[in-house]
Amino acid sequence: MRGGAMARLAVAARAFSASASAGAGGGVSMVQGASRGIGLEFVRQLLRRSEQGRVIATCRAPDAAAELRTLREEHAPGRLTVLPLDVTDETTIQAAAASVRETHGSLDLLINSTGILSIPDVIQPETTLSKVEKLSLMLAYEVNAVGPILVIKHMWPLLKVGGCSETGRGFSLVANMSARVSSIGDNGLGGWHSYRASKTALNQLTKTVSVEFGRKDNIACILLHPGTVDTDLSRPFQRNVPKDKLFTREFSVQKLLSVIDNVKKSDNGKFFAWDGQEIPW
Amino acid sequence: MRGGAMARLAVAARAFSASASAGAGGGVSMVQGASRGIGLEFVRQLLRRSEQGRVIATCRAPDAAAELRTLREEHAPGRLTVLPLDVTDETTIQAAAASVRETHGSLDLLINSTGILSIPDVIQPETTLSKVEKLSLMLAYEVNAVGPILVIKHMWPLLKVGGCSETGRGFSLVANMSARVSSIGDNGLGGWHSYRASKTALNQLTKTVSVEFGRKDNIACILLHPGTVDTDLSRPFQRNVPKDKLFTREFSVQKLLSVIDNVKKSDNGKFFAWDGQEIPW
Ligand SMILES: NC(=O)c1ccc[n+]([C@@H]2O[C@H](COP(=O)([O-])OP(=O)(O)OC[C@H]3O[C@@H](n4cnc5c(N)ncnc54)[C@H](OP(=O)(O)O)[C@@H]3O)[C@@H](O)[C@H]2O)c1
Ligand SMILES: NC(=O)c1ccc[n+]([C@@H]2O[C@H](COP(=O)([O-])OP(=O)(O)OC[C@H]3O[C@@H](n4cnc5c(N)ncnc54)[C@H](OP(=O)(O)O)[C@@H]3O)[C@@H](O)[C@H]2O)c1
Repeated sequence: MRGGAMARLAVAARAFSASASAGAGGGVSMVQGASRGIGLEFVRQLLRRSEQGRVIATCRAPDAAAELRTLREEHAPGRLTVLPLDVTDETTIQAAAASVRETHGSLDLLINSTGILSIPDVIQPETTLSKVEKLSLMLAYEVNAVGPILVIKHMWPLLKVGGCSETGRGFSLVANMSARVSSIGDNGLGGWHSYRASKTALNQLTKTVSVEFGRKDNIACILLHPGTVDTDLSRPFQRNVPKDKLFTREFSVQKLLSVIDNVKKSDNGKFFAWDGQEIPW
Repeated sequence: MRGGAMARLAVAARAFSASASAGAGGGVSMVQGASRGIGLEFVRQLLRRSEQGRVIATCRAPDAAAELRTLREEHAPGRLTVLPLDVTDETTIQAAAASVRETHGSLDLLINSTGILSIPDVIQPETTLSKVEKLSLMLAYEVNAVGPILVIKHMWPLLKVGGCSETGRGFSLVANMSARVSSIGDNGLGGWHSYRASKTALNQLTKTVSVEFGRKDNIACILLHPGTVDTDLSRPFQRNVPKDKLFTREFSVQKLLSVIDNVKKSDNGKFFAWDGQEIPW
């Protein structure tokens, strides 16, 4: 066999083993915002991927999170840990970090899935500037942009010592759930001021953090757009979505996990859609 | 004279007369955040441009704004109006809008210059993620992103009836002071999380508003980067700025006014540096 062909085979073998083990989902993963929707589905699929991987699911009210409880019972002891975490209350983020340090010692993957678009009687996506309210702008920012960054801040020490070989990745990864409507360049429709601005700020914060990680740490940070996914968040706005453009949670998370599996260290700071396409800022 | 040459001459004549009358700075202009720095210099230069143009300068504490008082005394009665406006207090924005409606009836130009980067003992540009504090993120967002958008919201009815011919522009213009560090694509250095994220959000909010204006109104909205300018804001961070890269307020505002003079309706939603170059998102 000639050298060139040999090298190609070796590359192919490495790629296969990397994607097989990444697909195996080993290591310690945290899904933040896991009570419902896309976050809950991440937990389900991460648990299903391997017998080894351990998952920490955080949510505001573990006692009310029936699906997470069921998942915990369906899997071997220790595979799923459920912890309380409200991104608007930094003390709960610190407490979750302390608990993970104690029980797991490190983190290989952190997915920030928490996000708000509308809350009845509190915040509604704006259809015009005249409906823009300070309270909505501030609340969306607090939950969608500030929340995930504070979570990364406190999980940083655990991510620094993560990136274990089991995951097949070779570095720790943070994936923040953004949204295509956060793209300024792609904003041709207007509206949704509070949500858009908060997610655009999340993009900038993630990019800013990625620069520091790229310089100092064995950690990469990416942004994800899940497509339009059938969850509580999108439900009030699904009327105008063509049926084939409304994804199931299963499909979206399968696709997002495949993006996560294929991330390279050099993708640090990038923004990917569910199909792996980069989204412009 | 052939048709082509004639048409070119006509275009040139139109361009000259447009820029001459825009340069004349007629109409009603509001500079929001005018007590110091770039905002104060905008007021000074707008007043100097023509004998006709009227300027409304807003600031948090008119009684303490000695330079604005002097400017008012130096110019003919009615040319400069000083009004109280704190962007964190929406009632003061509403009161300012009501006052302008009463005295001027319309607005042709609105410049939002207010911005914070550091306040001793309150907020400091972050050098690392570990120094990122929720309070700083929220405060920078409130002043730098939410503030200008609420000002536009309440001045909108006045801008709708503005765009008078005296300005030579043919439409009303909103110019929001952003900063090059708000560009996500251009963020190679990291740091300054709170300031960056707030200005990036301002970019998205301005773009979002521009979409609605483009659809309904005779108003355009742009974002400006003034360069690094010798003001209180930049003073603590000037050490590493090469001398020829640190602009005087006079030079920066001269350049920014020339960008403003040359804005076309089709520039609605764009982000320009002091030299007229577009900045990527
Ligand atoms: N669905 C879509 O079409 C779509 C499209 C683009 C982007 N996204 C993004 O994808 C992510 C997941 O969305 P989803 O559709 O799964 O939304 P979802 O079904 O509404 O779930 C939102 C999750 O966020 C949690 N959450 C809300 N406020 C929180 C707080 N203060 N602290 C901690 N958790 C909090 C909720 O917990 P509780 O149960 O306690 O309320 C819930 O688990 C979001 O970031 C969203 O912006 C979704
Ligand atoms: N200087 C630069 O190198 C530079 C570079 C890029 C972008 N910029 C942007 O350019 C704009 C002007 O900056 P500058 O250098 O002129 O800053 P500056 O000299 O520090 O002036 C800031 C102005 O904002 C006002 N302000 C602060 N908080 C306010 C509030 N809550 N309500 C109303 N006004 C408030 C201040 O008023 P008080 O006197 O009441 O505090 C002051 O007039 C800012 O948006 C800044 O981000 C500046």
